[in-house]
Amino acid sequence: MNYRIDNLQYCNWEREIFEINHEAGLNAVHVTVVYHEDFDEFLKRTSEWNKHFEENSDLIFLGKSYKDIEKAKLENKTAIFFGFQNCSPIEDDINLVEKVHEHGCLFMQLTYNNQSLLATGCYEKNDSGVTNFGREAIKEMNRVGIVIDMSHSAEKSTLDAIEISEKPIAITHANPSFWYNAKRNKSNELLKTLSESGGMLGLSLYPHHLRNNTNCTLESFCEMTAKTAELMGVKNIGIGSDLCLNQPDSVVEWMRNGTWTKIKNYGEGSKVKPGFPKQPDWFIDSRGFKNLESGLKKIGFNEEEINGILGNNWFNFYKRIN
Amino acid sequence: MNYRIDNLQYCNWEREIFEINHEAGLNAVHVTVVYHEDFDEFLKRTSEWNKHFEENSDLIFLGKSYKDIEKAKLENKTAIFFGFQNCSPIEDDINLVEKVHEHGCLFMQLTYNNQSLLATGCYEKNDSGVTNFGREAIKEMNRVGIVIDMSHSAEKSTLDAIEISEKPIAITHANPSFWYNAKRNKSNELLKTLSESGGMLGLSLYPHHLRNNTNCTLESFCEMTAKTAELMGVKNIGIGSDLCLNQPDSVVEWMRNGTWTKIKNYGEGSKVKPGFPKQPDWFIDSRGFKNLESGLKKIGFNEEEINGILGNNWFNFYKRIN
Repeated sequence: MNYRIDNLQYCNWEREIFEINHEAGLNAVHVTVVYHEDFDEFLKRTSEWNKHFEENSDLIFLGKSYKDIEKAKLENKTAIFFGFQNCSPIEDDINLVEKVHEHGCLFMQLTYNNQSLLATGCYEKNDSGVTNFGREAIKEMNRVGIVIDMSHSAEKSTLDAIEISEKPIAITHANPSFWYNAKRNKSNELLKTLSESGGMLGLSLYPHHLRNNTNCTLESFCEMTAKTAELMGVKNIGIGSDLCLNQPDSVVEWMRNGTWTKIKNYGEGSKVKPGFPKQPDWFIDSRGFKNLESGLKKIGFNEEEINGILGNNWFNFYKRIN
Repeated sequence: MNYRIDNLQYCNWEREIFEINHEAGLNAVHVTVVYHEDFDEFLKRTSEWNKHFEENSDLIFLGKSYKDIEKAKLENKTAIFFGFQNCSPIEDDINLVEKVHEHGCLFMQLTYNNQSLLATGCYEKNDSGVTNFGREAIKEMNRVGIVIDMSHSAEKSTLDAIEISEKPIAITHANPSFWYNAKRNKSNELLKTLSESGGMLGLSLYPHHLRNNTNCTLESFCEMTAKTAELMGVKNIGIGSDLCLNQPDSVVEWMRNGTWTKIKNYGEGSKVKPGFPKQPDWFIDSRGFKNLESGLKKIGFNEEEINGILGNNWFNFYKRIN
């Protein structure tokens, strides 16, 4: 059985997008439900999702484990897995880890770009690694079954998390910095350590993570995929597109600024390019998975490897962590 | 005019304690109103204080600036200044800095023992210094008039805060580590930098910060005071007793554990001594200021210096930061 999984999207959710994901043949999507929301605000987001599930029950349902990916495949639907891009919903309370899991959370980043109570983000000057509270949170996430996601974390914090966690962790959406040296991309050393520990990297299609950004070519992306497979092993990579379809620019501003600063922070953007960047034309939305399939074939991957990268590797990861 | 000020107490507040502070001749006390409380919980604490102010209006009132210390002296009362031992009440929102100030907050620690969103606490393994959000918060605290208190912070974070802050900062309750090498006590380098920037150190009478703990002698404490005055200048030191009168041991447990860990953390205590330690017999409560007065005289301080250490230095600091 082959699966197609996009392990990170943060779209402005509406039926149209569920239809696109369906057309793309995605059996599972890990969706970002919160950035800086606290526990109560997270609950509101889950209510909004309940409405989506009710109104689009022919296309989507809430996934809880790898079995729901199998179910989605059988029923020709997309299983939606909840994740957080910051640890804000657990606030300063270890007991909320279990609570957010009860409400569907399967992935949680220990940090967004800044320092959190758990670890250091990749936009801080110094990285002190996983904190006292962070160690406790990782233990608890392991216990209840939430995957540690270090996509936006700094290097030492990520290495700490890999070491402390008893289960494999994930970087759901980032690329190797050997290909494009963005702050959010990851070093070879880190990626090797990640794969040796059974962890997964979701390759990102977000222009700020791509060589030549919006003008990145499919060939260049697939070449990078091949080199990353050499580095990490072909079974430890998947896709985490970071698609932000139909989001207004006010959302990326909020993602970067939250409520922590009175002056504007541009994150990966800049004063002249503050908004969401344009996607490369071969990956406008998840239907670009077809182009990835051709591109990966052309670069020399065999069918099994391609099916691994485009979904089966994530499926096996979901199986390992459950 | 001479003032007596204790710049840190966290007692189990009731009339008896306000009477003791009155008997001790204290014109001002900086009280800890919260540790790990969020904004809403802080508001509840201020309501409890409103009740104290109403029921004990013959003894105490809420202080907002140095003028209230003058007023307290004139009216034979004690001005109460609000402070936080953690930054929890501002949550992740820069706009709450002004809000907590509007509700009386005059001192805020950037961290308790652990990493916070603003800086690193003294019980973390690594200290990454003041964070991105921390820089913004310091700017905002400077603007609205909240003093940065680094009593429970790690060294680099404290040096960062001194450098970033445009107003002098305080370490309201700690001692020099040259005298007693506790995790919470401070290095000579830090204390020199603090005083050179116009900052204040409040000497602590909490047994875990004292040489020989509960058995610390008045002579030893006053000798330490003399050496600290040599190091920092006699005008940059005061008292921040850290008195925790009538608090049940459950409170110290909560102070240390908050809600961040499921296993017990003993902080400055230990498994065999988990509770509040016994005060030395020459400083059972704030009436011990009398003993400090004699002790400081005996060690060779003149009257002006003694009045400085026991209150006037803090009074002048309050004047400088307003």
